[in-house]
Amino acid sequence: MPGNTIGERFVLTSFGESHGKCVGAVVDGCPAGLEFSEADVQKELDLRRPGQSIVTTQRREEDIVEILSGVFNGRTTGAPIGMLIRNADKDSRAYEAILNTPRPGHADLTARIKYGEFNDYRGGGRFSGRITASFVMGGALAKKLLADVLGIEIVAYTLEIGGIKAENFSIEDARRNRYSNEVRSPDPEVAEKLRKRIIEVRGQGDSLGGIVECVALNLPVGLGEPVFSSLDSDLAKIALSIPAVKGVEFGSGFGSARRRGTENNDQYRLAGGKIVSPTNNAGGILGGLSNGMPLVYRIAFKPASSIAAKQGTVDVSKKEETELVVPGRHDPTVVPRAVPVVESVTALVLADHALRAGIIPPVLRKEGNPP
Amino acid sequence: MPGNTIGERFVLTSFGESHGKCVGAVVDGCPAGLEFSEADVQKELDLRRPGQSIVTTQRREEDIVEILSGVFNGRTTGAPIGMLIRNADKDSRAYEAILNTPRPGHADLTARIKYGEFNDYRGGGRFSGRITASFVMGGALAKKLLADVLGIEIVAYTLEIGGIKAENFSIEDARRNRYSNEVRSPDPEVAEKLRKRIIEVRGQGDSLGGIVECVALNLPVGLGEPVFSSLDSDLAKIALSIPAVKGVEFGSGFGSARRRGTENNDQYRLAGGKIVSPTNNAGGILGGLSNGMPLVYRIAFKPASSIAAKQGTVDVSKKEETELVVPGRHDPTVVPRAVPVVESVTALVLADHALRAGIIPPVLRKEGNPP
Amino acid sequence: MPGNTIGERFVLTSFGESHGKCVGAVVDGCPAGLEFSEADVQKELDLRRPGQSIVTTQRREEDIVEILSGVFNGRTTGAPIGMLIRNADKDSRAYEAILNTPRPGHADLTARIKYGEFNDYRGGGRFSGRITASFVMGGALAKKLLADVLGIEIVAYTLEIGGIKAENFSIEDARRNRYSNEVRSPDPEVAEKLRKRIIEVRGQGDSLGGIVECVALNLPVGLGEPVFSSLDSDLAKIALSIPAVKGVEFGSGFGSARRRGTENNDQYRLAGGKIVSPTNNAGGILGGLSNGMPLVYRIAFKPASSIAAKQGTVDVSKKEETELVVPGRHDPTVVPRAVPVVESVTALVLADHALRAGIIPPVLRKEGNPP
Amino acid sequence: MPGNTIGERFVLTSFGESHGKCVGAVVDGCPAGLEFSEADVQKELDLRRPGQSIVTTQRREEDIVEILSGVFNGRTTGAPIGMLIRNADKDSRAYEAILNTPRPGHADLTARIKYGEFNDYRGGGRFSGRITASFVMGGALAKKLLADVLGIEIVAYTLEIGGIKAENFSIEDARRNRYSNEVRSPDPEVAEKLRKRIIEVRGQGDSLGGIVECVALNLPVGLGEPVFSSLDSDLAKIALSIPAVKGVEFGSGFGSARRRGTENNDQYRLAGGKIVSPTNNAGGILGGLSNGMPLVYRIAFKPASSIAAKQGTVDVSKKEETELVVPGRHDPTVVPRAVPVVESVTALVLADHALRAGIIPPVLRKEGNPP
Repeated sequence: MPGNTIGERFVLTSFGESHGKCVGAVVDGCPAGLEFSEADVQKELDLRRPGQSIVTTQRREEDIVEILSGVFNGRTTGAPIGMLIRNADKDSRAYEAILNTPRPGHADLTARIKYGEFNDYRGGGRFSGRITASFVMGGALAKKLLADVLGIEIVAYTLEIGGIKAENFSIEDARRNRYSNEVRSPDPEVAEKLRKRIIEVRGQGDSLGGIVECVALNLPVGLGEPVFSSLDSDLAKIALSIPAVKGVEFGSGFGSARRRGTENNDQYRLAGGKIVSPTNNAGGILGGLSNGMPLVYRIAFKPASSIAAKQGTVDVSKKEETELVVPGRHDPTVVPRAVPVVESVTALVLADHALRAGIIPPVLRKEGNPP
Repeated sequence: MPGNTIGERFVLTSFGESHGKCVGAVVDGCPAGLEFSEADVQKELDLRRPGQSIVTTQRREEDIVEILSGVFNGRTTGAPIGMLIRNADKDSRAYEAILNTPRPGHADLTARIKYGEFNDYRGGGRFSGRITASFVMGGALAKKLLADVLGIEIVAYTLEIGGIKAENFSIEDARRNRYSNEVRSPDPEVAEKLRKRIIEVRGQGDSLGGIVECVALNLPVGLGEPVFSSLDSDLAKIALSIPAVKGVEFGSGFGSARRRGTENNDQYRLAGGKIVSPTNNAGGILGGLSNGMPLVYRIAFKPASSIAAKQGTVDVSKKEETELVVPGRHDPTVVPRAVPVVESVTALVLADHALRAGIIPPVLRKEGNPP
Repeated sequence: MPGNTIGERFVLTSFGESHGKCVGAVVDGCPAGLEFSEADVQKELDLRRPGQSIVTTQRREEDIVEILSGVFNGRTTGAPIGMLIRNADKDSRAYEAILNTPRPGHADLTARIKYGEFNDYRGGGRFSGRITASFVMGGALAKKLLADVLGIEIVAYTLEIGGIKAENFSIEDARRNRYSNEVRSPDPEVAEKLRKRIIEVRGQGDSLGGIVECVALNLPVGLGEPVFSSLDSDLAKIALSIPAVKGVEFGSGFGSARRRGTENNDQYRLAGGKIVSPTNNAGGILGGLSNGMPLVYRIAFKPASSIAAKQGTVDVSKKEETELVVPGRHDPTVVPRAVPVVESVTALVLADHALRAGIIPPVLRKEGNPP
Repeated sequence: MPGNTIGERFVLTSFGESHGKCVGAVVDGCPAGLEFSEADVQKELDLRRPGQSIVTTQRREEDIVEILSGVFNGRTTGAPIGMLIRNADKDSRAYEAILNTPRPGHADLTARIKYGEFNDYRGGGRFSGRITASFVMGGALAKKLLADVLGIEIVAYTLEIGGIKAENFSIEDARRNRYSNEVRSPDPEVAEKLRKRIIEVRGQGDSLGGIVECVALNLPVGLGEPVFSSLDSDLAKIALSIPAVKGVEFGSGFGSARRRGTENNDQYRLAGGKIVSPTNNAGGILGGLSNGMPLVYRIAFKPASSIAAKQGTVDVSKKEETELVVPGRHDPTVVPRAVPVVESVTALVLADHALRAGIIPPVLRKEGNPP
């Protein structure tokens, strides 16, 4: 597959561009019988939508989803579910300037070389962060499936931006607070610090990187397929598919590289008849399989590449060095908008593996269905 | 696919267990016409082999490879290439003890729950680090293909173990030194420090984690397929398939999360008619595509889970808490032996993407082949 | 993959239902640089469209295609190409009747059992012949790619319907005549006989089966990948994906089962420096690979299952036997409308294999593209 | 995937050549807990083995299978199952002659062009009928899984050879008789006629084609995934992967093309509370899904291409016409040996779809497994 499709049994195909007509998603493999409507998608898309606050881009988009297929009488039918949002507010003129002068940190140059002059460069085209809207469409379905059938909950939040880190919070804090502040922090006080810092850096025409942490609760034991489709393999793969991501780590992650085995091993105990570990350095995954503890992983985002500063580049048509001021309206940091995207991709992988493991049945029968 | 196969156009299928008869690999998609023999595989396997020195496990294995198919008259034929090493030195008796008492940090418990009492627990079975021998078999083929056809060179090395880090070295140092010392360090002085540290910790019955860095040189621009098969997505996926890996990062990686855009963007310059960037924070990947700069990424390994210390566990048959001393002979750190494995998995992904991109032809004709 | 996606390097994902909002297609893997517009799709859709003549269903649909993505400045960009037709003329009321009384010969019963009461039964839902419009959308792109880059031409036609067979015609006749008559016959005289026969049977409330033959010209040698992705394997797979198809044969096909080797082997000759065979019992495929001779294969369609006659069925809600008169407007034979569908699926497989074989480059550069 | 792997959830990878070291198979996805041993494979391989009687090739091979992995304590573990037979009796000298003079009806020419001079031409190499031994290895596992878990039985037999057809027999006759005669006929009298006819044609240095029919009993309703992974699509794909196959048809097949809807539709009745159809023109498949009736399909084999007669060919090195007498020992018809192969490929597809549908669980627990 050339790269716009992911999953085995819960499969997302993504299409669309930043400044084309639309961004779309087709999900194949969703069991029949799940209650699902545009509202389920819209609420997730709204969390990702730009133009919501001062800390994100001023580009305004409605991003109203239309379900094209696969739902009948308010429930999924087992057929593929097509979803679409039309691109409304797009101003491509500014991008003419970058046709021949690739923006540092963006895919402009690599895409130009790979696809020749045919590449749709407007707004980053297929390489834009906007395509993550299709991840959210598919993720909304996956989330609902996981929640309704297995009671799985996925909670992502901003762990840090520009070095300012949330450190004292519970998963309960995160669940309650992350979507109540515009930076998606689990801690309202940290949120306020982040807001100020982002506005400050924005005023300087610069941008900030950060880290999103994601926790998934109530996972059954045994999700994941060794060797190459281990749960962490598939999560890492999809995480790196999000634009601007440069790293991923599970549990104690890179920190474990500096630990000893006696510190890092999670020993087992019994608690209420269940085998648990008081520590969770494994991040909920052992041997590529979920172990019943919370899944915990972190994704590193680089600072947004579109900055106001003048940067050195090369005019590829003239083959000469030049300077560029990146056009368009941009996020000073992609991290807050990435939080629902991270929840979505996590849901896509978990739904896929729950179906692979036979834990979610192919039809969600209510009871005693004929015939 | 249930997880033991990876790749699209250069496809590795892995089979075998730690204490079963063998570890094997089948590679499908290798172009016809590549010179290839057992010696090409053996030299790579020898780099991974246990029992080489004081810093790795004392288990002695010959690991002599047999090519089963796909090679005729010293060249690949286009047919799938089967490869096999027989397991020679295996002592499974010690593992009876762990049948019902899962080892902390290992897959024993998750595998037991996923596969029931049918799981081959001996030596970790399918979850053992030993299965990476199959990655090396496939990787040896991929490396040779990349080197012979495209001049691509892959150099991995131990960046740090237990917090002791190599910091002043060039890629040339790494190329020359890494396989001249038993810890696979690019710096002989650091190597000596690491050796002492590992022996010390080994004496304490404990283990150490570390980081492997991998560089690939001479990549063409445009390897990778957006969105979900981006080059970093596929490298991250296969990296997390290596046992004991807990994180992966590209270029400035997690460090980029604490940077500003002005610091992290790699600006472009012309150098000898080629577009280059003086910095390489991107690690050679933009928009999921190789950008012509060296590919640089790092993989975090947790400390080896098998330690001499007594650990808490649960007897799953009796459902009661107990303690366990892990049996068998083990590595105090997996990092040195992981270095050739990291080179192998990198080669597998690059070979796959070079074939996907049509950069390697399906037949490596010498010239003017009839008919 | 759950079944709505096909191909490896030229990949079609199909979605939509007979009486839902739309039928759609996403094609991933099309090289950048191909000239492509809605007109290229529309002309193929128009050949498949119902309501064209007396011999097909009276249901009138406009089937106007919209390209959603992947095309910029009149050429493909390398990004996935989304395409959509809205369902206009649908009258689902009649189908209420069949909710509980499955129509003989249709998927109503099997879909009901597989997907429960959630199945979209209206007009056959996902199992309707209408979904082949998505095959035609993807096929239009594949056909254009094959024609523009390789000069491959695909010609399908009605070989027989209801036992009336075209026997004396050349490929040139087929190319010229098949779309000039409403039954898609290569022979205008046979076309007239077929037309009369179909109208007669239609008047009797009955239906007819038939055979479509498909020829592809100018194939390079070596398309196909042994063993399980042989060219005939992949053509057979997609042929059987067309509703109402019950068989497929290549070259002398089932006839070869009654021949001797001396009769059936195609001996080789030289003609103009090329190796050819005066006979083509192989149908252009040897060992699963195209051999440079015309690809020739035939697909058997059963008589349309929707007939006016009263038929025995079972009320699945009451679990009792009953009778049914199938509602809706229907084709007395699906064969004429299947002809462009067969061309489309053939093109999809050939485009996929041409890309797999590296015969079509990933970018169709005009010449000397910068950089 | 380049073509040597098939399936989604029960996945066979095949490797090996006719005159190389071995033929091998790796099956991934088999549930843990199935009793399985070499004897289960050997009995199937013995049915396919050459040199059994006068009607097949005189090449003698032992074909003793070795299970390499995935079985522990007599049961599958959930890990991939590697299997191997070594090639014993191979005499490649005769094939030197055909290096440059491709045999009519074989893959020699197409393989030579696709893979260049690197192709392993000895005995047909990867294109030999001998590779179907790997289908049988995987099929033996699939058959046992289907029988043990679902009670599915697969019965293939020779329907006709050289125009001599078995016409009066029951499935019970086929089950009892097919492996009691060397031509695999369901009817002992027809078997005797076939035997004489084959010996006669063999004496003339010629060969015969034929048809294998395959029936699968006790299928659950709903196997198959629309659209492109319909049950008939996947069966057709794998059928055409068997060397010498030129056609496949389901139920009334090509015959249905000459019928009317009133004749061909299978009307429904109730029988013992189950919905059945007195006729089975559908061959057990509606809308690509199994319908609970017996699966019935037929595969057409061309006459064996290796015949004693002198045939016209081209010397590809000299580019001149020449004549060839095919060397080696050969089957006068491949049909009898294909019968167990057809059963095997049918089992592979059914096992895959039973796993996709969640009808076979991922672990075959006996009862109350801890933990």
